[in-house]
Parts: sequence; C-alpha cells; structure tokens
Amino acid sequence: MKKLITGLLLASSFLASAAQTEFTPKQLKQVEQLKENISKSNLSFNILESLTTEIGPRLPGSKNDALAVAWAQAKFKELGFDKVWIEKATFPKWQRFSESGKILTPSEQPLHLTALGNSVSTPKEGITAAVVLFETLDELIAAPKDSLKGKIAYINYKMNRHIDGNGYGPAVKARSNGAVEAAKKGAIAYMMRSVSTAHHRFAHTGGSHYQAGVKKIPNVTIANPDADQIARLVALNKNVTVNINVQTKNYGEGTSYNVIGQFNGSENPEQYVLIGGHLDSWDLGTGALDDGAGVALTMAAAKHISDIKRPKRSIRVVLFAAEELGLWGAKAYFKQHETELDKIVAAAESDFGADVVYGFESNVNAASLPVVRAIAKQLASLNVQYIGKNSAKGGPDLIPLKNTTNAPIFELHQDGTDYFDYHHTADDTLDKVNPDKLRQNTASYAVFALMAADAKTTIKAKPTQ
Amino acid sequence: MKKLITGLLLASSFLASAAQTEFTPKQLKQVEQLKENISKSNLSFNILESLTTEIGPRLPGSKNDALAVAWAQAKFKELGFDKVWIEKATFPKWQRFSESGKILTPSEQPLHLTALGNSVSTPKEGITAAVVLFETLDELIAAPKDSLKGKIAYINYKMNRHIDGNGYGPAVKARSNGAVEAAKKGAIAYMMRSVSTAHHRFAHTGGSHYQAGVKKIPNVTIANPDADQIARLVALNKNVTVNINVQTKNYGEGTSYNVIGQFNGSENPEQYVLIGGHLDSWDLGTGALDDGAGVALTMAAAKHISDIKRPKRSIRVVLFAAEELGLWGAKAYFKQHETELDKIVAAAESDFGADVVYGFESNVNAASLPVVRAIAKQLASLNVQYIGKNSAKGGPDLIPLKNTTNAPIFELHQDGTDYFDYHHTADDTLDKVNPDKLRQNTASYAVFALMAADAKTTIKAKPTQ
Repeated sequence: MKKLITGLLLASSFLASAAQTEFTPKQLKQVEQLKENISKSNLSFNILESLTTEIGPRLPGSKNDALAVAWAQAKFKELGFDKVWIEKATFPKWQRFSESGKILTPSEQPLHLTALGNSVSTPKEGITAAVVLFETLDELIAAPKDSLKGKIAYINYKMNRHIDGNGYGPAVKARSNGAVEAAKKGAIAYMMRSVSTAHHRFAHTGGSHYQAGVKKIPNVTIANPDADQIARLVALNKNVTVNINVQTKNYGEGTSYNVIGQFNGSENPEQYVLIGGHLDSWDLGTGALDDGAGVALTMAAAKHISDIKRPKRSIRVVLFAAEELGLWGAKAYFKQHETELDKIVAAAESDFGADVVYGFESNVNAASLPVVRAIAKQLASLNVQYIGKNSAKGGPDLIPLKNTTNAPIFELHQDGTDYFDYHHTADDTLDKVNPDKLRQNTASYAVFALMAADAKTTIKAKPTQ
Repeated sequence: MKKLITGLLLASSFLASAAQTEFTPKQLKQVEQLKENISKSNLSFNILESLTTEIGPRLPGSKNDALAVAWAQAKFKELGFDKVWIEKATFPKWQRFSESGKILTPSEQPLHLTALGNSVSTPKEGITAAVVLFETLDELIAAPKDSLKGKIAYINYKMNRHIDGNGYGPAVKARSNGAVEAAKKGAIAYMMRSVSTAHHRFAHTGGSHYQAGVKKIPNVTIANPDADQIARLVALNKNVTVNINVQTKNYGEGTSYNVIGQFNGSENPEQYVLIGGHLDSWDLGTGALDDGAGVALTMAAAKHISDIKRPKRSIRVVLFAAEELGLWGAKAYFKQHETELDKIVAAAESDFGADVVYGFESNVNAASLPVVRAIAKQLASLNVQYIGKNSAKGGPDLIPLKNTTNAPIFELHQDGTDYFDYHHTADDTLDKVNPDKLRQNTASYAVFALMAADAKTTIKAKPTQ
C-alpha cells in the first residue's frame, strides 16, 4: 500500500512539474475557471438549436447553405470574435428533388430509399427491373461481364457497430465505387444497403462518384429494414423486382464559403490553434449531429475562452464548406493558406456527432509532448483519457492539411457507437443531441484550445520524414 | 418465520387443490409439455416472417389485403386446423397515393407527415398556409369562431410513455376529432403531432373521422422531431408557413374477410375459446407489431395445443378484418354470431405488439375463479403475474363483443412501453420483434387457451347487471 501511494505521488508530482513548466498556477486556475463556466452554460446547445431550427438542412450550394453562411458570420460577430471573414470554395453542385421506391414482386410494398450525392436521375417513371443480390462489392466485381444487363445490382453488406466507427470504412467502399462497378457489368441502376448501424427505416445518403468512360447509372441506398426484407425475399427464391425513382440534378460548379472567426492572441497573434467543424450538411435531416454539433461546440469553446482571457496565440474557428460533397472547403482553405501552415500550433476538428469525448490524442514532435500531457491532465476531470500513441488523425476536413504538410494535429475521440444510426439520414435532428454530452465536448475543446494557445512551448509537428 | 412458511404451504396447497379439482395430474403434465415444446419452437416467428415478408402491408380492401386473406387460409390449412373458413366484413375503403410536406418559412425544410386514415386529398399542389399552434384539442375548441380562416390548425400535444399505454387515450382525442373541430373554426387543413412516444422522424397514421355538416379538410400528423421544430419556430415568433400535400381516395364500401381456423373440441366442440388478432395493417409499415404478432402467436399457440391434444372445448383463432379502419371485422363477427355468443368460454385478443406478457387478468363470474387461478399458477413460470382484479377489458376487437353481451374476457397484459415508438409507422417491421419475447407470448396464450378449453368447470361471464 505504501509503495502504491509513493508511486502515485511520484507520478502526480511528475505531471505537476511538467504542468508547472508549461503553465503557471495562474494559468491553471484559469483552466479550472473555464471548466466551471462551461459546466453552467448552455451556449453550445443554444447555438446548435439556432442553426438547426432557423436554417435546418444546408446542402452545399442551396439557398439554405447561403443562409447558413450569413448565420455563421452573424453568430461569430454576436459572440464578439475579433475577426470574422469568409473564404470562397467551389464544388460540383448537386440537388435532390424527389425520390420513391417500391418492391413490385412478389407483392407490392414501399421501398425506403435515398439517392446518393451526385447520383443521376432515373427517367420520370423510374426504373423497374429485377434485383441481383451480392453480399459484398468484391462479389459484384467478380461477376461475369454483362451478367447484370438490364438488372439492378444490389449490395447487401451490413456495417458493424463500434465505438470508433471502424465499420464505416469497409462499408463505404460499396458506396464510393458500387455504381461504377455495377455499370461495368451492364446494370441499369445500383442499389445498396445503407451504410448504417440503425434498425430504423431511414436510408442513409452520402458521397459517391462516377468514373470517366463508365455509364452513369442511378445510385441509391435502402434502409436496413428494407434491405432485410429484400434479402429474405431473395432467400425465398422469389423473383424480386423493384421500381426506383430519384429525380436529381447536377449543376456544374457551385460556390460556398468557409466562415472563419478568430480571437486574436495577446503575444503571437499570427500563430493559431485551429478548431472547427463543417457548416454544410446533407439535405435530409437538419445536420444536428453532422455537423451542427461540431460547429456549435467549437464556436462556443472559443467564446468561453475569450471570457477568461486572450491566450498568447490566436484561437481560430473554421467552419468548412461543402465537406459532404468531398471536403471542398477544406481543400480551398489549405490551398489558400498553403504558405503559412506552419502558423498552426494545433488543429482539431469535431465531426463525429455529439456523444462524449473519451480520449485525447496528439500527433506532434517530442518536444511538444510535455504540453500535451499537461493538457491531458486537465482533461482528466472531464472523463477524457490520454491516449499516448501520438498518431492522431484528426477530422475529415484536416485530411487536405495532412496531405499538404506535417501539422500538429489533435483528436478528441468521441464515442461513435450510435453515430451511424443517424448519420446522413432525415433522422439527424436536434433531439438526438444530449445537452450534457455536448457541454462535455465543449469543455474538452475549450480546455485543449486554451492550453495549446497559451503554453510556454510552441507546439510543433513531427519532423518531415 | 415458521408462520410465514405455514402460510406459504397453506396458500400453495390451496392453489394445488384448486388445480387438482379443475385439472388432473395428467392434464397438468400436458401443460408442462406444451411449455416445453414452445420453448424450443420458432413457429410463431416463422409465421410472422412469412406474413410480413411475403405480403407486407395489408390495408383493408387493398390487393395485399386479399393476398393476406388467402395467405391466412393456406396457413391455417398447412398447420392442420380442423376447420378453416372466412366471413365477410365491409368497411369504408380508403387509399393513400402520395404525401409530402415542407416548412416554407422562415427557411425551407422537409416536413415529415402522413395522412390520417379517411383524410381527403389536398389539391394536387398541396395546401400552403400559416400554422396556428395549440397545445391541446381543448384550446383549439376554445378558439373564437372563424379565427382559423385560411390557416392550418396544429395541435402539439405529446403523449406519455407508459407500460400499459395509458398515454394513448388522451392523445388520440386530437386524432379522432381534431379535423372536425379545426374545420368548425375555418381552418383549411388540420395537422397534429403524431400520437407517438418516439424520437424518430416517422409520422404515425391512424383512424380519424369527419362529421356530417362540417367541411372535410385534409388531416395529417407530423413526426415528433418535426413537431419539436415547429414548436421551436413558433416560440421564436417566426411566421411558420408550410405546404402539405396528401393524395388519397375514399372509395365507398370495400369488402374483406375475417379468416377463422378451429381445432374442434373432443367433448363440447360447440363451446370454444376465442383467441386471435387482426389480419389487416396500415399501409406504411409491414404490420409486424400491429398486428402480425397477434396473428402469428395465436395461430402458433393453437397449433402447439393441437400437437398435445384436442381439449374438451374447441380452440378458435379469429383473424379479424379491417380493424384499423374501425373494428369492422369484429363488428361483423359478433353480429353474425350474435345468437350463440354464450358458446364462448374465454376470449382474448393479442393486439399490443410483441413485448413480453407480464400479467394475466380475467373478467368472469365467481364460480370460474378457481379455473382462472389454476391457469395463473401455470403461467407463473413464464413470468406472468396474476392480476386479481377480474375486470379485464380485452383487445380492441373484443369491444363489439363487450357491447353485445357479457362475455368471459381475458387479457394477457403486454409490456407496451415501446409500442408507441413504432405503432402505425413505416418503422413497424419484422426487425422490431424479438423472437424470444414472441415465444413467451405464444406460450402464455397456449397455456391459457388449452386450460380454459380443458377445465372441468365451464368458464362463464359475470351475470348481467
């Protein structure tokens, strides 16, 4: 027992000494005050409520997307940010007008489907054809040439549920490439089980693409209960024919804007901590989890920091445009700032819903690790554990940054167990967000951003290999 | 302690003696065998899977409804019932063709709605108007005459969740009478929050009616997240306008059939235990919980009994037609059999989903109570408690029976905590049914029906007051 206590004291004094080197007692008191303030605040939920209620869905290039850009600028100003500006981003604009589906044989039943982003329209009366079921994309790819002529290719692959969402990657392959592979075999439309862990009757939309030289065929997902139904009918050796009808339009290049707000640093304002989310959403829900939550909690975190102090370095909140159609805002941001990316001392994006943050991970050089550990120590009281692997990947809008340069990237790992129940569906609405959990997210981002911006040591990326 | 044990022994020997009077040891062994057989059987789930997969939705008067009538007759025969027949029922036939909704101001957003059964159509382009919100039907009724001229009346009342579904009655008033009261005040359409405990984006349909002399206006419900959204917009003092579009048709009289299967009793075949559910369903889901489960578990229960023996009295499974549109099959059945209702020795309908049976209650004369207690004793091992109030109400299709005569009615109370998450929605599909829970339901009905049919004493109703 004595040994254990001595060990604990040693560990705690080691951490304390690291923290004391990087942060003065006054600074640590400010962190405590920040946590205390946020624990009593509804600010992030109120911002989220405003965005999802007053604007609702925000498909890139839509009227609502423009309303959201105006909303974000106004909200940044209302919150007292020192600088608020927008930066242009372009993307291939697409719109959904209507969609419906039916199983026709062996008996007529509704089929809950949704077009994937970028999907071409069916004819006005839809496409009626027999369904050919494959369990995986690989099995479709292995099908003989022309074997799907006049048919609707269907992939029945079901994603796994996991706290870190690791079922998404394997499932999303069929979403990205399914229509191309199906068309190569002669299919006249492509249909897949939603990339979803839900047992509710919502189809999940998402990004997809075509390939030059391969016929563009309509590209839809169906809800899990409908997928189960079709699998059962196929298992009964029934001839399953369906009608799918999606009316969509591709417009060519559309325009939107990254909206950026900054609180300027008191000593090195050109250096900044980048936090944010993406402002756009799919058109089906109101984008509360994806990614209203990320928008709201990072805006609120910065505002809460500003109520305490102006840290040494700036806090910049970037609300990326057109993430859902292919990270277009992120690509534009990192291209536009390409010559000054070394000014980013820490970057973290929240884009994984609104469940609790359970882990904190860095991706920085060795000299920065004492700062990381000092931050982790302050996050512990929020039930956030330190993940010491130092190989954080960051959110999707940081991918272009990682592709451009090494950068000090952080990840506040969220519990994503239920995220893919709602992701990209009509059911992604405000009631799915728990205000207490959103508050814990806000506090986690605020503590991280304040300390990264206010540390003695400037955090730096790993050296380029 | 000794006292307690003596008490328990006395109670148990009392129950044992009652059971011994009504049932021989051989009969009790047969009950044990029945439970044992069902614990190893998937029959009820298989029947439910067949109905909901091969037929799907079964709106009274639809093509699928006719398919379901044929399916039920074939299934009864396949299960070896001694007699299988149909009895005609008529009802006001109605059909839904399409429906959609939008919030137009303050920003354009989808509005998830569904027409209530019997609702008239909107014009082809829908109805666009401002929304006037009332929290309750009473507040709408209290509104000044003509105050809703040109408006859409909206009732925001939210039902409570409860194991016995007691939130349904208060909420359903606005569904039954809302459109009539709204039209009296000049409204051009009626909209209400779904009668629902769900936080998912499904609108719940259900029965509704018009009143002679009052204008028929379109009559829709909206999903709970949409209702929350409208309530928030109204609270922000926004002018909320919506477009609602439902295309429906009333056809006048339609025809369907109660489908009935019977295993004949060995001693008094003219006397019978009536169990069953309703074969029809709403058109949105596949009617797995409402009421495929009731159909499947009562068919299976009777079949399992027949595998053990032919009890003294008959077991009759009645699959009622057109329940959803107003108990039309039940009315027809009890009218057709009105001179011989005293042949029913026990009646129970399962129409409350597929969660576990937790309680067993009778509504019988005093002389029948020893039989009831003997049955209750056998249900205890299935985790079904005896509810001694002796005032069971039965399922909805027994209402015409209760209105016609006293009858020995039983209720196997199901846990309805989650039932109104799915009830009357597109989300009422097979995956919502837990096979283990359905098996427990099947066993409970089988034990009840066998013992009621095989008891020494013929169960009788309470004397008419």
